[in-house]
Amino acid sequence: MNKKKVSMKDIAQKAGVSTALVSYVLNGKEKESRVGPDIAAKVRQIASELSYQPNYLAKSLRSGKTQTIGLIIADISNPFFANIARIVEDEAKKHGYTVIIGSSDEDADKSWDLINVLLNRQVDGFIIVSSESSEDQIEYLNSKNVSFVLLDRHFPQIPTDFVVLDNRKASFEAGTHLIESGYRNIGMIAYRSQLFHMRERIQGYLDSLQANRVTFRPEWLTEVEFNRIESEIRAGIDAMLASDNTVDALIFATYRLAISGLKYINELGLKVPDDLAIVSFGQAEAFDLYYCPITYLQQPMEDLGKAAVELLVSKLKDPQAEPRQIRMEARLIARNSSKIKAAVS
Amino acid sequence: MNKKKVSMKDIAQKAGVSTALVSYVLNGKEKESRVGPDIAAKVRQIASELSYQPNYLAKSLRSGKTQTIGLIIADISNPFFANIARIVEDEAKKHGYTVIIGSSDEDADKSWDLINVLLNRQVDGFIIVSSESSEDQIEYLNSKNVSFVLLDRHFPQIPTDFVVLDNRKASFEAGTHLIESGYRNIGMIAYRSQLFHMRERIQGYLDSLQANRVTFRPEWLTEVEFNRIESEIRAGIDAMLASDNTVDALIFATYRLAISGLKYINELGLKVPDDLAIVSFGQAEAFDLYYCPITYLQQPMEDLGKAAVELLVSKLKDPQAEPRQIRMEARLIARNSSKIKAAVS
Repeated sequence: MNKKKVSMKDIAQKAGVSTALVSYVLNGKEKESRVGPDIAAKVRQIASELSYQPNYLAKSLRSGKTQTIGLIIADISNPFFANIARIVEDEAKKHGYTVIIGSSDEDADKSWDLINVLLNRQVDGFIIVSSESSEDQIEYLNSKNVSFVLLDRHFPQIPTDFVVLDNRKASFEAGTHLIESGYRNIGMIAYRSQLFHMRERIQGYLDSLQANRVTFRPEWLTEVEFNRIESEIRAGIDAMLASDNTVDALIFATYRLAISGLKYINELGLKVPDDLAIVSFGQAEAFDLYYCPITYLQQPMEDLGKAAVELLVSKLKDPQAEPRQIRMEARLIARNSSKIKAAVS
Repeated sequence: MNKKKVSMKDIAQKAGVSTALVSYVLNGKEKESRVGPDIAAKVRQIASELSYQPNYLAKSLRSGKTQTIGLIIADISNPFFANIARIVEDEAKKHGYTVIIGSSDEDADKSWDLINVLLNRQVDGFIIVSSESSEDQIEYLNSKNVSFVLLDRHFPQIPTDFVVLDNRKASFEAGTHLIESGYRNIGMIAYRSQLFHMRERIQGYLDSLQANRVTFRPEWLTEVEFNRIESEIRAGIDAMLASDNTVDALIFATYRLAISGLKYINELGLKVPDDLAIVSFGQAEAFDLYYCPITYLQQPMEDLGKAAVELLVSKLKDPQAEPRQIRMEARLIARNSSKIKAAVS
């Protein structure tokens, strides 16, 4: 913006009145201050001629409320977060809030940066999908009494409002479903991460093996680095197939892992589900269009997004209320990729 | 935020000095103002004890620069825009800017709202993927001398900086490729929209028929409403197939239209490409995983996003410079969905 902004002072000079008087008029307080109606009209007209723009920033500094929510997501290029952002926006709008979004790209430093930028822009509160190692940011927000709700991921040791999936249970269901469909040697591909939701997904998978008396083999579990998905998935699948206890089914802990894994499975010429049954977290168009529709754990995205907005709105009304914590359930959508295993002839 | 913010005045009272002195110290100007080092240290310690947070908002009001860019995209749940947002962020970071994102959801009112919210938060400039009927917003920004760059979509009648695809050329290539592969009766599914890029995609398709002396049939072109994609695509494909000149190939003007169309084509039991060849705009994992990999027009997303940031950064340095306008080319990635047509036996 290279043109100098028109100030109340400019209007005052042109109208030949005081800046205070201009302020009274433009803030709709002329009656209280006994400004004559013709003077008020003159001030308004000059303001209009000069294209005066009230400085909402300064205004919100005074009122302390901006009716905006900061939404920090872990990765905007991930369709799950992009879709949830859309739901949060729609829901926030119903409550009269505008949403400003930042993407941390799974990077704690970037997340700090966004929290500061948005705090300095006086958002009323935050909805945050946390990146790894960002506990200190959450504790900072707590210590500053900033209102926020964690979405999709939370830190169990920090008391906060949150809305998440019951990931352990969902993963347990995926494993149990495969075992009930006749598969025994079940592998899992997940992220190497300390994030609680990822640990829970792995734990639920291990639980399902144990509950069904299947002995877990270390080579069945591959944890890949976020930045080396492709090569590590290849190595992981190779190891699972080379195992003495070669896998006949595979659970992917996220949609992105599944897409990358399915591409490699195609390359290898393996047929789903005859050579390898598949269950994945998340929903995606690619799962529908795959030659063998993929069984997936459907996350209640609509409900997750709506609940996060509702928790935040009620938190903004009553910041001292006890943290509210909501766990939702995934729904297993069984399709051909995990159909009952054909008997070995 | 429910705790009263600590002000410089609070610090001044506790330290027994003037607010001006606190301001000098906290703004690093104690030397110029000859504040003694022990007083400065005392002020800093009290500020730290009280968890004083400098008000960057007020600061940026003074300096007029915030090192933030507002990115307004047309629909965050569309992977094309979500991916481009990620690229814009990465590139902006290299230039020292933080990106705040808003999604207009193809709604001009919401776009107005976001522009106001972000203007009031003093972003230095905008990158905008315009929604339909938002010309007045672009003219408003021009009239206010706000720095901005249009991305992916532009209004040819308004002089602005922009970075877009040469959509007419891309669509022409898609049609020509199909004709060269032996298809003659080529349909197109696009949006019913006055947005220039969409008109250009349709025009390029029509050009390709004309250049190859194929007579266009009105039932070959379906323009669907943004909010009724599914039902109108079904009706459109039904009409194309019922035509005396039944289509043997189909161009989708966007990725989302293609996904919806392919689902219906699967339902109908049509085989790609034998019953119907396919070319689509945009790239997507679903195109790779489809049983017959889909031919698509690859948009140079990386280059589009980078160029938009570069144009904006140079605009911010020299706001009076003439608008710069960049058109990039799509690359047709030919795959099995448009392979040479088998001779009719």
